[in-house]
Amino acid sequence: MEKKPYVIGLDLGGTNSVFGIVDQNANVVATTSIKTQGHGDINQYVDDCVEALRPIIDEVGGIGKIHAMGIGAPNGNYYSGSIEFAPNLPWKGKIPLAQMFSERLGIPVRLTNDANAAAMGEMQYGAAKGMQNFIMITLGTGVGSGIVVNGQMVLGCDGMAGELGHVIVEKNGRQCGCGRKGCLEAYCSATGVARTAREIIEKTDKPTLLREIPLDKIESKDVAIAAGKGDEVAKQIFEETGRILGEACANFAAFSSPEAFIFFGGLTKAGDLIMDPIKRAYDASVLRIFQGKAKMLVSELDGAAAAVLGASALGWEVK
Amino acid sequence: MEKKPYVIGLDLGGTNSVFGIVDQNANVVATTSIKTQGHGDINQYVDDCVEALRPIIDEVGGIGKIHAMGIGAPNGNYYSGSIEFAPNLPWKGKIPLAQMFSERLGIPVRLTNDANAAAMGEMQYGAAKGMQNFIMITLGTGVGSGIVVNGQMVLGCDGMAGELGHVIVEKNGRQCGCGRKGCLEAYCSATGVARTAREIIEKTDKPTLLREIPLDKIESKDVAIAAGKGDEVAKQIFEETGRILGEACANFAAFSSPEAFIFFGGLTKAGDLIMDPIKRAYDASVLRIFQGKAKMLVSELDGAAAAVLGASALGWEVK
Repeated sequence: MEKKPYVIGLDLGGTNSVFGIVDQNANVVATTSIKTQGHGDINQYVDDCVEALRPIIDEVGGIGKIHAMGIGAPNGNYYSGSIEFAPNLPWKGKIPLAQMFSERLGIPVRLTNDANAAAMGEMQYGAAKGMQNFIMITLGTGVGSGIVVNGQMVLGCDGMAGELGHVIVEKNGRQCGCGRKGCLEAYCSATGVARTAREIIEKTDKPTLLREIPLDKIESKDVAIAAGKGDEVAKQIFEETGRILGEACANFAAFSSPEAFIFFGGLTKAGDLIMDPIKRAYDASVLRIFQGKAKMLVSELDGAAAAVLGASALGWEVK
Repeated sequence: MEKKPYVIGLDLGGTNSVFGIVDQNANVVATTSIKTQGHGDINQYVDDCVEALRPIIDEVGGIGKIHAMGIGAPNGNYYSGSIEFAPNLPWKGKIPLAQMFSERLGIPVRLTNDANAAAMGEMQYGAAKGMQNFIMITLGTGVGSGIVVNGQMVLGCDGMAGELGHVIVEKNGRQCGCGRKGCLEAYCSATGVARTAREIIEKTDKPTLLREIPLDKIESKDVAIAAGKGDEVAKQIFEETGRILGEACANFAAFSSPEAFIFFGGLTKAGDLIMDPIKRAYDASVLRIFQGKAKMLVSELDGAAAAVLGASALGWEVK
């Protein structure tokens, strides 16, 4: 049977829920978004999503033109189609979101972890095209990962594999949102970088542009701006963040020996200022047999589009 | 085409090279072995292997009855059929061992990492039967691993994936044979356990059976014997070893969320004395979403047979 011409992709983030209608050539032909928070219960959220979707569905000729829907969401479980215990979303416990959308829209809906969706987008449309083994690291509010082995997503026995943001990189280190201490996410997420910034600024007398900002207001992107202007303290903050990421990736290489690590998200906008320290720490730390093998790449997809495209790729998986 | 009735399995270890001729029901019908060291160059080693094999090949009716050969070897690369830079073997650099055996025997030969071979054996004949996602941890002279994801071996971009013994578990920790510091292997291999024993005995005044052995002669198996007799210091040594293993496995779970970790090798003979500390540390350390999911199992295959059976499983892969 001929596939219908469009899929819906939903990138469900802690702040925004972004929808795109995507054609078979990966063009996002229509898009809309709503805030993720403030809808009361999950039923109201899904109703509000469907209401926001109606006009763009009509734009492409109605629901009869839509093959399926794909959702990328934090703690998304591909097997169950549920969001499970997502710390940054307003709904607790297990939420059968794929089923809820499917019932309202009358089309098949697939759901997966947001970082897995990003990896799928990268594999189909971006820097990982043609790769069989790579690891996607998403650097945003949290740190996520999508792992591809033998051309397939690593989902694990429960659909929840690929949580490299919660590998412990520092014993008894910083408190992480997950309740444990020393996770990669506690150092290399946006808030982790801001925290490193505060720690380094408090410890040094060196002049830095970052002192112009109140200490508790410094954000990851302020560090990037200052580093871009040659600020030594800001560069030191990225050096430290990159070291932790590079050493963590050296350990990940021992697992799946990927052809590439692909970094995605706000922090990568700092370009070589963050990528060079990652590469240096990786090269210095990785096991000899893996040296010089994995490429360190930045996602080739535009941030917002990547997540929606990745989610939409799931929709095309539906036979 | 009907497959011929037998395959040859070779478990190539640092000390012994053990051969088995295996039938389609996983019966080892004939076996022989030679020392791995002391053959001069690699050509002489392969010649000596073939000479040792001749009588058992004749026993089953000649080479015409042999479908293929499978080899499990340290630093074995499935893609190239070579042993690459194995620190504990007498031959340096890259050794195209599969090709060398194939030329002499006139049958197809496949080669892989020894821990991968053990994982394949476990998947076909042992505790991992029917599992799609598991991690095999081999605890011997070194610490190796074989990782199965979606029912397939994780080989990586280069055939060398699954080196979890060289994940760094302690920054600036113990010197490892790989040249780096703080690898899992430096703590949980047989020599790692012996080293932990010496460190703990030197630091304590507690009475222990282990003081009857000269400090530099204590081996991993002495610790097991003492612990089995209720020796508190010996139990503390296993507690510490199990803690490091359990915490490392908690990090590995974040990668592939396996259905089980399967432990194999000398250290597992200590049974609950080592498995209980592993389980406790794992449960205390693993991310909440993975709690209570992965089973912690001991290999169901007899040590020597497992490695040969695993290698032979590779032989059956030949179409």
